[in-house]
Amino acid sequence: MDLLRIADQTFDSRLMLGTGKYTDLDVMRAALEASGAQIVTVSIRRVELGAAGHVGLLESLDLSRYTLLPNTAGARSADEAVRLARLARAVTGTAWLKLEVIPDPHHLLPDPVGTLEAARRLVNEGFTVLPYMPPDPVLAAQLEAVGCATVMPLASPIGSGRGLLTRAQLELVVERSRIPVVVDAGLGVPSEAAACLELGASAVLVNTAIAEARDPVRMAAAFRAGVEAGRAAFLAGRMALRPHASASSPLAGVPTLPDPEVPV
Amino acid sequence: MDLLRIADQTFDSRLMLGTGKYTDLDVMRAALEASGAQIVTVSIRRVELGAAGHVGLLESLDLSRYTLLPNTAGARSADEAVRLARLARAVTGTAWLKLEVIPDPHHLLPDPVGTLEAARRLVNEGFTVLPYMPPDPVLAAQLEAVGCATVMPLASPIGSGRGLLTRAQLELVVERSRIPVVVDAGLGVPSEAAACLELGASAVLVNTAIAEARDPVRMAAAFRAGVEAGRAAFLAGRMALRPHASASSPLAGVPTLPDPEVPV
Amino acid sequence: MDLLRIADQTFDSRLMLGTGKYTDLDVMRAALEASGAQIVTVSIRRVELGAAGHVGLLESLDLSRYTLLPNTAGARSADEAVRLARLARAVTGTAWLKLEVIPDPHHLLPDPVGTLEAARRLVNEGFTVLPYMPPDPVLAAQLEAVGCATVMPLASPIGSGRGLLTRAQLELVVERSRIPVVVDAGLGVPSEAAACLELGASAVLVNTAIAEARDPVRMAAAFRAGVEAGRAAFLAGRMALRPHASASSPLAGVPTLPDPEVPV
Amino acid sequence: MDLLRIADQTFDSRLMLGTGKYTDLDVMRAALEASGAQIVTVSIRRVELGAAGHVGLLESLDLSRYTLLPNTAGARSADEAVRLARLARAVTGTAWLKLEVIPDPHHLLPDPVGTLEAARRLVNEGFTVLPYMPPDPVLAAQLEAVGCATVMPLASPIGSGRGLLTRAQLELVVERSRIPVVVDAGLGVPSEAAACLELGASAVLVNTAIAEARDPVRMAAAFRAGVEAGRAAFLAGRMALRPHASASSPLAGVPTLPDPEVPV
Repeated sequence: MDLLRIADQTFDSRLMLGTGKYTDLDVMRAALEASGAQIVTVSIRRVELGAAGHVGLLESLDLSRYTLLPNTAGARSADEAVRLARLARAVTGTAWLKLEVIPDPHHLLPDPVGTLEAARRLVNEGFTVLPYMPPDPVLAAQLEAVGCATVMPLASPIGSGRGLLTRAQLELVVERSRIPVVVDAGLGVPSEAAACLELGASAVLVNTAIAEARDPVRMAAAFRAGVEAGRAAFLAGRMALRPHASASSPLAGVPTLPDPEVPV
Repeated sequence: MDLLRIADQTFDSRLMLGTGKYTDLDVMRAALEASGAQIVTVSIRRVELGAAGHVGLLESLDLSRYTLLPNTAGARSADEAVRLARLARAVTGTAWLKLEVIPDPHHLLPDPVGTLEAARRLVNEGFTVLPYMPPDPVLAAQLEAVGCATVMPLASPIGSGRGLLTRAQLELVVERSRIPVVVDAGLGVPSEAAACLELGASAVLVNTAIAEARDPVRMAAAFRAGVEAGRAAFLAGRMALRPHASASSPLAGVPTLPDPEVPV
Repeated sequence: MDLLRIADQTFDSRLMLGTGKYTDLDVMRAALEASGAQIVTVSIRRVELGAAGHVGLLESLDLSRYTLLPNTAGARSADEAVRLARLARAVTGTAWLKLEVIPDPHHLLPDPVGTLEAARRLVNEGFTVLPYMPPDPVLAAQLEAVGCATVMPLASPIGSGRGLLTRAQLELVVERSRIPVVVDAGLGVPSEAAACLELGASAVLVNTAIAEARDPVRMAAAFRAGVEAGRAAFLAGRMALRPHASASSPLAGVPTLPDPEVPV
Repeated sequence: MDLLRIADQTFDSRLMLGTGKYTDLDVMRAALEASGAQIVTVSIRRVELGAAGHVGLLESLDLSRYTLLPNTAGARSADEAVRLARLARAVTGTAWLKLEVIPDPHHLLPDPVGTLEAARRLVNEGFTVLPYMPPDPVLAAQLEAVGCATVMPLASPIGSGRGLLTRAQLELVVERSRIPVVVDAGLGVPSEAAACLELGASAVLVNTAIAEARDPVRMAAAFRAGVEAGRAAFLAGRMALRPHASASSPLAGVPTLPDPEVPV
C-alpha cells in the first residue's frame, strides 16, 4: 500500500489542510471531511489571541481523526519561533510542529537562515519539525541534515493562488531529498497540486484555495481528487516527452481506401 | 447532476479515450475500465488495414458499455475524410464521427480549411461531427455555426505529451463556444487534463499518455481522478489570484507572546 | 550582409511598425525614426474615414524612406478584404498589402478560412500579400502555396501586450516555412521580440507596445535593439540547453588551497 | 545619463562577463570587446591551479579597461570562501569580490546560510562583496543589511542555459532591494537578459551562453544589444497588459466602404 511516512507515523492522505480564512467553522469542518486530510495545521498564536475565525477552532476539531500540526505563524525570528513552538506544545500536547519564520509581514516569505537555526534548536528539544521554507535545494539538504521530518517548500507566495511558479527549483529539492517534500503555499487549483505530486513531491498543504473558493467543500473534494491523480500518475510512470507529434500507428505504405458509399 | 451533453446523449464521464499504441488489447480494455471513459475513439482505417494493435480491436470493445466514436485518422483532405467517414458509418453503424483532416504526416496537425469543409459536408450527410482542430477561436465559431456537436482543439502536438501549450487560445475557444469543448492531443499527465477542465473545457481525450505510461491501467485511473478534480474545481469556483502574499489572518497589532516554558 | 528579403525587395531592419494609437503624429514620426523600421503599415480604412489619429497620417510619412504597407484592418470577410485591398492600391499606388480578415471585433482574431481565400484572390490580382494569421503551421503552408510573400502569425491577441503565448506553434510555423515569418500582434516588450528572432522568425511587427509606452520614442529604440539582439543570437547559434548545472571547469581533484593571509 | 552604480564606481555597461569555458583566450578577449562589458569575473582558484582555459588568463586581460571581479568559485563553505577571498585580494590587489559558496559540486547551487555568513565577515574585512545567491527575497534583504554592494540571484542552474525560471522570485527581490540586483547564472539567450532588465534588474552576468555559442563574439554583441534593449524598455515604461485584444482605433459605427475598382 502507498502510504506517506512522516517521522514515525503513516498516512493514507497526501493532502494537508490549513484552518485559516474560513468564514465559518462548520464550513471548515465540512471541507476537512471532504478533503480526506489527516493532518491539519493550526496557528497557535491566532488561537491564543482569539483572532478572527480562530475562536473555538481547536475545540471544533475532532482530534481523534486528525493529526494536529501546530504552526508558528506570526514568528518573525528564530527566537520567536522557538517560543511559539514551546507554547504550541504546552497548549496542544503534541511535539509535531510546522515551523514558520517569516520576518516580513508584507511578502510573508520564509527566512532561510532563521528557519535553519530554529529547526536545529527545536529538533534538539525533541520536536518533530516540518519547516516551511523557500524552494532552495541547498537549504533543504541542511534542514534534512539537522533532523527535520520533512521540508515544506513554497510553490508561490502564500495566499496568492499563483500556482507552481518555482517548478524548476522544486524538482531539484525533490531530487536530492530523502525526507518527504510537502509543497506548501501558493497553490490555487487542484491541477497545480497534481503537478506537485507528479514531479515527485510527497504531499501538499492547501488553505486559501479551499477556504476562499466559492464552494469550499466541493473545492476540498476537488483537491483530494487532484492529489490522488498526481500521486497515481507518479507511480504509474509518465510517458516520455517528445519534441514532435507521433501518430498512433505507422502511416508509411498506407493505401488509399475505396469509398464504401459512393461507387467510383 | 453534472452531465456532459453531446448532441442528444449525456455522459457522466468527461474523459474520452483513444485506442492506438497499446501493445496488448487486454491492457487496453483494463485501461478503459479504469478510466471510467464512456466514449472511445477508433481509427477505422487502421482497423480495416489490420494495422499493428488494431486487429480485433472493434470486436474487443464491449459496445454495450461504450459509445463508439470512429475517427478519420489517415485522411489528408476533406475528400478523404468524407470517404473515411462513410466507411466508418458503414462498418460501425454509428453516425458519430471524430473528424480528422491531417495533410502532413510529419507534424500531424489539423487543416483548418479542410476540416471546416469536411464538417459542413458531413453534417449535411447526417453525421454527428466532433472535429479535431487547431486551437483557433474563429474556426471554432465556424465549426459551431455549421452544426458540429463539439469542437476538439489540441493542447500540443499529438502524441508529444508536451501538455497545455495553447492555454491562452483554449481559453478564448472556451469563452466563445456554446457547444462542448473537448481538448484533444498532447496531454501527458493528469494535472494537464485537470487544468483543461478548470479553465472551462467540457472534456478531454487522451490516448498516448495512457498507452505509453509504464503502468497504463494505473495511469488511466490517474487521468480519471484528474478530470474529476478539474471539473469539481471548475464548479466550485476558484479563489481569486493575488499578485502578492496574503496572511491567514490580520497581523496588525499582534502582541509578542510570553514564552510558556522559559521563565522570563 | 544579413538582409531581410520579401518578394523582390530587401531590408536592413527586421522591425516593422504600425501607426495606430499614437496620440500625436510627431511622436509617431520620432518613434519611427528611432525604431529604424523600413516598413510601416497603415490602416487605409481608418485613413479614409478620418479616424482618431489617422487624419493626415499618410501625408506625414516620408515615403522616400519607408516602404508603405497598407492593411485591410476593418475587413470582416474575404470580400471586404479584397475590396479594401483594391482601395488601398488605388489610394497609395503600392501593391504590397498586409491582409487582415477579422470577423469578430471583440477578440480581433484572424479568420483562417477567409484569409486563405482572400490571399488566393489577391495574389491572382497581382498583390504582394503579407497575411496576418493565427499561429497555425498548416495554414502557413497553404498561404505559402498560394503565393504569399510572408506569413504573419500572431504572438498573442492584438493590442494585449501579453507576449509570446504561442511559442510552440510559432516554432512549427518557422520550421516549415520557406518564406519569411513575421510575428505580428501581442508583443509587449523587446525581450519578446528578441525571442521571436531567436527562434527563427525573420521579423516582427509592433504597434501598441511602442505607441502606448510611457516614452514611445525610447521604447522604439528599445525594440530596435531587441530585434537586433535576437537576430544576432540566431546567427551566432545558441548554447545547448542542459537539464542541470555545469561548472566553468572540472572540479574533480581540486585541492584545498592554503589561506594566503592567515598562517596555518 | 543612465549609469550603473556599484559601491563607489559607475559603469555604462550593464552586462558583466565570466571568463570560464573559452577554448581560446583570443576568442575570449574578442568576446569581451564585443560585449561592451566593463566588469569581468575570474575564478582565482582556477587561475592559481592552472585549470583548463585559465593559464595566462589574468595576464591576458587589459585591466586598464576592465574592472576585475575575482570570484570564489570552488569554495564549499563560508570558511573556504573567506580564504579564497583573501587569496584573491592578495593576488589581484582589488577588494571587489564575487562571493560564491557552493557546497554541492553536482547542482552548483549557492548556500544561503554560508553565503550570508561569509558576506558578513568579508564586508567587515573591507571587501566590496557581490554575492551569488538563490533568488530569495528575504536573503537578499539580509545580504543588503550586512553591507553587500549588490545581490546576484540566479535565473536558473549555472551553465544550464535554461533561462529565466525564477521570474516570480526575482521580481520580489527587485521590488525590495535598494542595492543593484545583478542576475547571474542560467541565462542562455539575449531575450532572457533583456527580460531581466525589463523587470527591473540592474545588470546581468553571462558566461556559458557566450563561451559556448557557435560564434561567441557575435553572441557577445547580441547580449550587449539585448541588455541595452531591456534597460531602455524599463526606462521607457512598458504598456499595460490587457487580458484581451484591443483594436488600433474604435470600430463602432464604421460604415462599409465602397469598392473603388469594381463598380457596384
